[in-house]
Amino acid sequence: MNPGDFQSWAAARQSRIELFLEKVLPPPRIAPESLHAGMRYAVLGGGKRVRPLLAYGAGELSGADIERVTVAGAAVELIHAYSLVHDDLPCMDDDVLRRGKPACHVEYGEATALLVGDALQSLAFQLLGEYRLAEDPNDQLEMVKLLGAASGSRGMAGGQAIDLACVGTRISLPELELMHIHKTGALIRASTLLGAGCGGGISSAERAQLDTFAKLIGLAFQVVDDVLDAAAPTATLGKTAGKDADRDKPTYVTVLGLAESRRFAEQLRQDALAALSSFGERAIRLRQLADFIVVREF
Amino acid sequence: MNPGDFQSWAAARQSRIELFLEKVLPPPRIAPESLHAGMRYAVLGGGKRVRPLLAYGAGELSGADIERVTVAGAAVELIHAYSLVHDDLPCMDDDVLRRGKPACHVEYGEATALLVGDALQSLAFQLLGEYRLAEDPNDQLEMVKLLGAASGSRGMAGGQAIDLACVGTRISLPELELMHIHKTGALIRASTLLGAGCGGGISSAERAQLDTFAKLIGLAFQVVDDVLDAAAPTATLGKTAGKDADRDKPTYVTVLGLAESRRFAEQLRQDALAALSSFGERAIRLRQLADFIVVREF
Repeated sequence: MNPGDFQSWAAARQSRIELFLEKVLPPPRIAPESLHAGMRYAVLGGGKRVRPLLAYGAGELSGADIERVTVAGAAVELIHAYSLVHDDLPCMDDDVLRRGKPACHVEYGEATALLVGDALQSLAFQLLGEYRLAEDPNDQLEMVKLLGAASGSRGMAGGQAIDLACVGTRISLPELELMHIHKTGALIRASTLLGAGCGGGISSAERAQLDTFAKLIGLAFQVVDDVLDAAAPTATLGKTAGKDADRDKPTYVTVLGLAESRRFAEQLRQDALAALSSFGERAIRLRQLADFIVVREF
Repeated sequence: MNPGDFQSWAAARQSRIELFLEKVLPPPRIAPESLHAGMRYAVLGGGKRVRPLLAYGAGELSGADIERVTVAGAAVELIHAYSLVHDDLPCMDDDVLRRGKPACHVEYGEATALLVGDALQSLAFQLLGEYRLAEDPNDQLEMVKLLGAASGSRGMAGGQAIDLACVGTRISLPELELMHIHKTGALIRASTLLGAGCGGGISSAERAQLDTFAKLIGLAFQVVDDVLDAAAPTATLGKTAGKDADRDKPTYVTVLGLAESRRFAEQLRQDALAALSSFGERAIRLRQLADFIVVREF
């Protein structure tokens, strides 16, 4: 694998997703102006677009049309962006910095930030109804169901609720894992499966392998996030560093320690790669993404 | 029209929607418990279910299967319920009373209430992907798009943003109308069109007539709400009365006065009925619903 090649592959797709998001987010000159400005502020010009990249990687594996994967990736990214806006609100994590900029509620006020999140979620589903994503419209309805479940009370929102309930408590490794499978894992999994679903070329056994990959890499992603939160300076992170410890939140670092968390992330990456073994060259981008996710600013 | 007949028609459908919502909302014994308890608290055992009733009325007109309309009506009701939870939050309308009970955030805390709203929205779309609603799955994808647009920044959430921006300002009648076409009208319209879409028996001209009906009755609904807010006691209303005036919000009553607002609501009702004229007996339930919506506790 040539890392330079991966970087240009990723950069081309990051530009593509940015252009599409730019197109589907209403312009701020259309009323209600501040809501539309806030939506664009929360989504555009920031973020590594890890979820869309996973959708593209899985889409290449299944022979999907890149335009279709772009819609799927954008829908997942809108859900992710809305969750960040709501998570940063004073009644949640109360954070003022996001992607190196003031958080949405700092810039636009709490009420508008609440509506920005709400409207971004609506837009994500609107896109899944509006654009053609799969050859068979029934498969596309499955995608709507999958993204709804991944975002809801048994997915991302549920993980956030478990997270809230854990502040100030001591939890076990399985409990921590359960929280992250919901909080981060569900949407990572949705990205991968939606991307793959845009193509027609995978069997149900292959889909199960992709699902395993996505679950492992989703967990790895969170372990790495916890390590970075504990170890990286705020400037590198683009969000407030050390805030988990400050808020007395259980993380992999508090439960396992820093060195063991790093080993665990590496183990998850290897297990994730093993789940892709039968795909051969078709999974090259997913393998590179696994490296990209785990080998961030360690 | 026999009003007793309407009451039993409506009661049977209110029970049906309640049972379905009860079934699709996760039980509170499943983790995260407080989130699931909050979701059920916000949705079950309250509300007139006006939006599902409109879906049923439109569904009968188009020859729709009642099970399918129940799913459509439930999806719209979940969106409506989420909007009430978020609207009542301290950073929005800051109201403590809803449907005669403490508001969701008073009962479960602000952070959980925020997640309750988020997860209810996800569940609404999950249902539209999970259940069969239309013969042609492409028509069902159109429903996903319609509900997404009706909920988002150019629909309900947008109306709420316009509402926020109007607090303490003097606005004209057209501006007030624009706000309500978004805030209440978009979802009333979605209810009617989704219900009709569950059947196959209407032409595009008839769909346009239904759309006109829904827009007029949606506006009438809001005018009546403003009249009730100004004129009815809190106990009757089940939410804090007079709060619009307290918050210096423009309403039909502040712009037109009480008597003129009542006349306007009645005019809208007559125009809405006129839009149904070509349907004959097929629109009997929608006509009764128009009366039900406008001739509330005046």
